Amino acid sequence: MLKLFYSPGACSLAAHAALEEAGATYETQLVDLKAGQQRSSEYLKINPRGRVPALATERGILTESPAILAYIALRFPEARLADLSDPFAFANVQAFNVYLAATVHIAFAHVFRPARYADGEVAVAAMKAKAGEALDEAFAAIDEKFADGRPFVHGAQYTLSDPYLLVFERWFTQGKLGHPERCARVRAHRERVEARPAVQRVLAAEGLSTT
Amino acid sequence: MLKLFYSPGACSLAAHAALEEAGATYETQLVDLKAGQQRSSEYLKINPRGRVPALATERGILTESPAILAYIALRFPEARLADLSDPFAFANVQAFNVYLAATVHIAFAHVFRPARYADGEVAVAAMKAKAGEALDEAFAAIDEKFADGRPFVHGAQYTLSDPYLLVFERWFTQGKLGHPERCARVRAHRERVEARPAVQRVLAAEGLSTT
Repeated sequence: MLKLFYSPGACSLAAHAALEEAGATYETQLVDLKAGQQRSSEYLKINPRGRVPALATERGILTESPAILAYIALRFPEARLADLSDPFAFANVQAFNVYLAATVHIAFAHVFRPARYADGEVAVAAMKAKAGEALDEAFAAIDEKFADGRPFVHGAQYTLSDPYLLVFERWFTQGKLGHPERCARVRAHRERVEARPAVQRVLAAEGLSTT
Repeated sequence: MLKLFYSPGACSLAAHAALEEAGATYETQLVDLKAGQQRSSEYLKINPRGRVPALATERGILTESPAILAYIALRFPEARLADLSDPFAFANVQAFNVYLAATVHIAFAHVFRPARYADGEVAVAAMKAKAGEALDEAFAAIDEKFADGRPFVHGAQYTLSDPYLLVFERWFTQGKLGHPERCARVRAHRERVEARPAVQRVLAAEGLSTT
């Protein structure tokens, strides 16, 4: 059976929500990041990089959210979380997800995990300042995507990009970075995604609120 | 026809090599990063983020290397650049490519494009120091993947991950960061990939040497 290693509210929330949306049979195992469980010898056997999410499959372990999400779409095609018959549409979903991983998540990581990128108080403060600017720029562009009235990232159809974006929408509105108040369409997207029954179940399972 | 926007030796080299390997019919357009062409109003219409690669298709523009690479594999399945019939194998290729994008490329970007992450000399120096450590750690792990004698990243079969890794192998061995001399298997992989006829043609087209 599939087994998702997650931490509440971490970016593993995207894979968790996608598994639930797909109607997958899976189990979860909590990795308490605050308690440092990701650095336990037991977890490092699962993911030597000590991060969540990791998805244990019958064939081995998968890491990296955009890859785990793609796997869920390929394994549960009837859930239509990506259009597998259309190379452009599939790659376009991947492009947005890689942008979230390599730009948006990275901006947050400079604040939440600064030691990955530099040591010293001056550098940490400088990275935090720039991260706020980067997030304002990124979320302004994302907000603009919804200007045509689309309910979801890629249009009328809910895809892998929606629960993945939800992770960062939550971090942005809960954090003390940038100006989330400027992004009303992003906030509406968050509410729309959180209202889905599958997402409601996952938020409850992770002990998270929707406010 | 497909059109790849690239800069010589930039990460666009991966998509360029994959297109050539796939036997695709495509054209290329040089975007001179050193001259700042990526910020021209003409190029910002192609990619508003002002980066390469971008791949213009009949359906629209794709960005982000792992997504463009996935598109090439899906559009030219006979080239077998990813195993499309096997969700785990496909996702595993994506996982490695996202790791390159969100960890390895990001480490280099802290040195090559520090203004994305922080301003000020102290911060820039601190990020450069950490990037060298991060690259040593990443390439040690990548080098170890080849310890079982596999010729390519995922085994006997050449995949999307090989030309993408080549980009960073070239940067690592040419740069002044970390300790590339420790990674003999990575160097051998680079030589193996560069010896392929398709890669030779692309290196020549970009005006790059193989040394």
